[in-house]
Amino acid sequence: MGASTLRVGIVGGTGYTGVELLRLLVTHPRVEVAIITSRGEEGTPVADLFPSLRGHLDLSFTAPDVRELAKCDLVFFATPHNVAMAMVPELLEAGVRVVDLSADFRLRDAKLWSQWYGEPHACPELLEESVYGLPEMNRERIREARLVGCPGCYPTAIQLGFLPLLEQGLVEPDGLIASAGSGASGAGRQAKTALLMAEAGESFKAYGASGHRHLPEIEQGLVDMAGGPVSLTFVPHLVPMVRGIHATLFSTLRDSSLSLEALQQHYEERFAGEAFVDVMPAGSHPETRFVKGSNHCRLALHRPAGRDTLVVLSVIDNLTRGASGQAVQNMNLMLGLPEQTGLEGAALMP
Amino acid sequence: MGASTLRVGIVGGTGYTGVELLRLLVTHPRVEVAIITSRGEEGTPVADLFPSLRGHLDLSFTAPDVRELAKCDLVFFATPHNVAMAMVPELLEAGVRVVDLSADFRLRDAKLWSQWYGEPHACPELLEESVYGLPEMNRERIREARLVGCPGCYPTAIQLGFLPLLEQGLVEPDGLIASAGSGASGAGRQAKTALLMAEAGESFKAYGASGHRHLPEIEQGLVDMAGGPVSLTFVPHLVPMVRGIHATLFSTLRDSSLSLEALQQHYEERFAGEAFVDVMPAGSHPETRFVKGSNHCRLALHRPAGRDTLVVLSVIDNLTRGASGQAVQNMNLMLGLPEQTGLEGAALMP
Amino acid sequence: MGASTLRVGIVGGTGYTGVELLRLLVTHPRVEVAIITSRGEEGTPVADLFPSLRGHLDLSFTAPDVRELAKCDLVFFATPHNVAMAMVPELLEAGVRVVDLSADFRLRDAKLWSQWYGEPHACPELLEESVYGLPEMNRERIREARLVGCPGCYPTAIQLGFLPLLEQGLVEPDGLIASAGSGASGAGRQAKTALLMAEAGESFKAYGASGHRHLPEIEQGLVDMAGGPVSLTFVPHLVPMVRGIHATLFSTLRDSSLSLEALQQHYEERFAGEAFVDVMPAGSHPETRFVKGSNHCRLALHRPAGRDTLVVLSVIDNLTRGASGQAVQNMNLMLGLPEQTGLEGAALMP
Amino acid sequence: MGASTLRVGIVGGTGYTGVELLRLLVTHPRVEVAIITSRGEEGTPVADLFPSLRGHLDLSFTAPDVRELAKCDLVFFATPHNVAMAMVPELLEAGVRVVDLSADFRLRDAKLWSQWYGEPHACPELLEESVYGLPEMNRERIREARLVGCPGCYPTAIQLGFLPLLEQGLVEPDGLIASAGSGASGAGRQAKTALLMAEAGESFKAYGASGHRHLPEIEQGLVDMAGGPVSLTFVPHLVPMVRGIHATLFSTLRDSSLSLEALQQHYEERFAGEAFVDVMPAGSHPETRFVKGSNHCRLALHRPAGRDTLVVLSVIDNLTRGASGQAVQNMNLMLGLPEQTGLEGAALMP
Repeated sequence: MGASTLRVGIVGGTGYTGVELLRLLVTHPRVEVAIITSRGEEGTPVADLFPSLRGHLDLSFTAPDVRELAKCDLVFFATPHNVAMAMVPELLEAGVRVVDLSADFRLRDAKLWSQWYGEPHACPELLEESVYGLPEMNRERIREARLVGCPGCYPTAIQLGFLPLLEQGLVEPDGLIASAGSGASGAGRQAKTALLMAEAGESFKAYGASGHRHLPEIEQGLVDMAGGPVSLTFVPHLVPMVRGIHATLFSTLRDSSLSLEALQQHYEERFAGEAFVDVMPAGSHPETRFVKGSNHCRLALHRPAGRDTLVVLSVIDNLTRGASGQAVQNMNLMLGLPEQTGLEGAALMP
Repeated sequence: MGASTLRVGIVGGTGYTGVELLRLLVTHPRVEVAIITSRGEEGTPVADLFPSLRGHLDLSFTAPDVRELAKCDLVFFATPHNVAMAMVPELLEAGVRVVDLSADFRLRDAKLWSQWYGEPHACPELLEESVYGLPEMNRERIREARLVGCPGCYPTAIQLGFLPLLEQGLVEPDGLIASAGSGASGAGRQAKTALLMAEAGESFKAYGASGHRHLPEIEQGLVDMAGGPVSLTFVPHLVPMVRGIHATLFSTLRDSSLSLEALQQHYEERFAGEAFVDVMPAGSHPETRFVKGSNHCRLALHRPAGRDTLVVLSVIDNLTRGASGQAVQNMNLMLGLPEQTGLEGAALMP
Repeated sequence: MGASTLRVGIVGGTGYTGVELLRLLVTHPRVEVAIITSRGEEGTPVADLFPSLRGHLDLSFTAPDVRELAKCDLVFFATPHNVAMAMVPELLEAGVRVVDLSADFRLRDAKLWSQWYGEPHACPELLEESVYGLPEMNRERIREARLVGCPGCYPTAIQLGFLPLLEQGLVEPDGLIASAGSGASGAGRQAKTALLMAEAGESFKAYGASGHRHLPEIEQGLVDMAGGPVSLTFVPHLVPMVRGIHATLFSTLRDSSLSLEALQQHYEERFAGEAFVDVMPAGSHPETRFVKGSNHCRLALHRPAGRDTLVVLSVIDNLTRGASGQAVQNMNLMLGLPEQTGLEGAALMP
Repeated sequence: MGASTLRVGIVGGTGYTGVELLRLLVTHPRVEVAIITSRGEEGTPVADLFPSLRGHLDLSFTAPDVRELAKCDLVFFATPHNVAMAMVPELLEAGVRVVDLSADFRLRDAKLWSQWYGEPHACPELLEESVYGLPEMNRERIREARLVGCPGCYPTAIQLGFLPLLEQGLVEPDGLIASAGSGASGAGRQAKTALLMAEAGESFKAYGASGHRHLPEIEQGLVDMAGGPVSLTFVPHLVPMVRGIHATLFSTLRDSSLSLEALQQHYEERFAGEAFVDVMPAGSHPETRFVKGSNHCRLALHRPAGRDTLVVLSVIDNLTRGASGQAVQNMNLMLGLPEQTGLEGAALMP
């Protein structure tokens, strides 16, 4: 592939994953955002909706038009669920490659999808073809994929944290626990009372404790890693901050004699070649601000009181590694670009 | 006991538990704060250090003087650990009753204390006499106690959440997990870099994941409930807010056939007569702001996907129920006052 | 008046001023909340909407019914503008006294009202009778009033700050500047995108800089104080917090020789008998947390570099002194109760 | 100048301006951070202190050594005041160019400096040579400078906001008012009680209202613009957030007939060629998050009620444009690089 500029399109760029995608793409050296669509904001300059982009992007929202999108090398869907599945088949047919940031192409099981999303899936035949866009699991398949279902934010943090344990069968697969917290941007840019500053600020709560839509996605991934059944209890929490996800993962070691040092070494080796996974020294406490605006996942291991419960801490930026950064990482792989292109920035700290 | 005003003293009132104690006591109808001590702030009017108290309290800090404190009916210690144990014996001898908010008299085992606090305990002989000030466990003993060790903030939220389960042996006692988060005031009013707004704001992290000083206190309480050994994995987190503690508790049901409804009923019955424990409807998500400035603990039960892992959510205000409110509750019991006196205020919301 | 319990009603209690009013009234020793209305939440227990009130209040929302409200001694309107003006005439006729927390009865000039609120005023004849509920200005008239228009939050902080200066003509009345900031609860409990945690958190902005609805209310009050025309430039800001208002007031001294000490003394004398206005020592910096949940306004004076620009800092809790606390203060006056009844609580700090 | 890599050094990189400088420089295509010094952290890997830089920088702090620093093309001082002035003379003599982010070389008047900083200036002879690093004012002189005193954060926001007005004499120069707010990172990475999350969070206050060290710096700059005396009242505020500065500027128009449109046009023309100053449409409200992590200053004009008081709103990121971003902008100019090099990133939003 030469150094020519590639054209990408974005369907539905008025939410937080949309503006984050734009933030990353406006400085990406190899691609150009050619189209960004929104029915509701048709005609509005993107930088009017997102003044952070003033001076960086001279583009207006247009109504979605498959013929126009078909002129792109790759199209991102940064839409709520059930939008992508209506448009993707036609785009694929037109030879466009697709990275879907929504939930439409993450689950392989159409029945499970319709159970959690309350409607039939529009193109179940594509679910098998779609590649789950977690590069540390599926890198080679992503390179060849026409369609990538980009992982959710909690699923990314949790799967990367459990990955080395489950791949090697080091922990009991049926008593996994993930207690995780997300900043408010994870809930999207929708005007809901519960997400108001005056409601969500200066407070902390669990939500979806009896069942959350991310659970089947996470369990599907963990099953792939474990090569057998797993059972996860997942409780998400709303943290009074804007960005960031922190997952605290509990599991029971199968072999008590396995030392923390050995586990640490195992994690370091598993992720040795990974640009975007950082295994911090054992006993570290990664903070969400260590990855603010960056595509990194940072992990740390603890074995409290030397007992058999292992604790893995995992942090990502929910909008970068948990959505748009990972989408760009997938795009880079699909377009044959170096995986880190456009994702080199360090986290914003403090 | 008549309606005369009782005299209380506070040793070390320059921290957050001190100012919270004062907030509650200045409107308490039966007691008067007669003395408040601080070596560092001797001579400073309390309301100069805490302008929130301007117009409510006309008192200055004095150097600690046991003879003066001995004129009080009851003395609170709102000091760092290892201060109370040096002064309490003399006060008890003088006939003063003591509520210690620090860690000095919470553990019954002097060896365990010195292991976690790095020095020998100054009066191990009092550890047995001291009553652990969790009224829902020890109400009658508190009434008679000369010395009460007031529970820590995390321990209060976690013990109240597990109490009905362990008392009845409903869950496996050896795989308990508590993933909890606290606002920054829980770390005290000390100038540490890690607690700066610019460090702790807009971020989320675990800390002490390999071992936290509150663990032995919590396990001691859980053992008392269970009447046998327990094993708890406890991971605290720092939440970017000022006040509040939220504990997410995981345990494994011994009997799969026990329904969520039955568990809910069991919780409601156990806490039926408790003024300060609120069992919310099953499936609720208590938020820390539901108890801001109030002495309530609010609980809710979840059984995700009907599996055997039970999730209990428990919230308190770390400075009220987690420290000074509970101290006043204990004082009320010790002085023969109605338990709720001075603690009737509803939470500040939003 | 005897010690019998008085009955109060609340129209429209589903917003933040509603829940704050309830917080204050549930511990008020002389009144009982007999009715609380909401069309949208009819039938819902109040404590279901506001779990902070669980255990404090056993009442459900009912549809507004003037006959029922007419059984109350006093009715609060905690509604958006244009609701109270439709119901108040009938209530007054029925002999009920009214404290309106909305904007309907603050302005005396019906034309000005309709200019800022975009519709004609429904009962302009009551605007003259209505008393502006700033006790420090209108205490005696409030005692006798049938109808009190409770001041807005910014207007309270700003008017109290300028009061001693304008009453005595100490500053130029035509170049007044108020740069003020409010927590997000000031915008009400409405689901607007701009008020989301993910939008308003970790950011700071001015709004309404070209003209804000509070301006005519503030200028009306300042004119009353000055006894002549005034001109104010008012710029409000949204502060990433939940509660609190801080006003920074700039004015030009008419007499350069007037010392800061003399001004300080003047402020202290003017507010000497006021329970809810605290003039802090000159050079102090009141913080909004010094009044969180309390009915106090705390003020401080500065004269930077000894020049002729005087700076007054003024803080209140927007929901307490800026709305519901002041409403209770007005109620106390109207019902012949001691002005501080039910408002004795100290601020929640930290 | 060829495309070779230039060597830069950083003295004192353990604070927030240090880590922000590193964040910008690790992706700067033309420079390499060769040395970073800290006495306190000698030997510590930079990424241990700032884990956000793990994977981006492989460098440890060393003790400051002028001979080593002298091998750099340019050295930044990211130190508290009074450090740079002790080392700069020797570095300049060795032919190294210097960008000082501290206050040592901002004021031209050594007497004024010692008055505000409480000690004599160590090299008053360099104050005249030093160029004030506000590129929009002094671009050509910066290109040639050996020594640049980088503007403070408040001064940058305030000066850019007033610049077009004062240069053209459009407003009265003696009644300028700046009411500004900063996130907590502006106070530096020092463990002070007042900056704790539990103190500064969920609250808002003014500070230094009677006089702040930034005042003489700002007035010096405004005098340069106005070509004559100015008088500014400056009140800074602490905003409960981490990053960002917002300045609300008030001034009185000399000519009432000058329309807002004309003023808007004047601003747009004045900053037409400026990559890092964005004049938003009149009536806009720039938010600090519109510039988070970016080097932009965004401005907007308001003329409330058509009166003669003009309001200018100005936002920057205090650590980027208010410190390290502007330092890199100055470095680019000094080293003959395109001014925007390494500063192309869009703001992080939300």
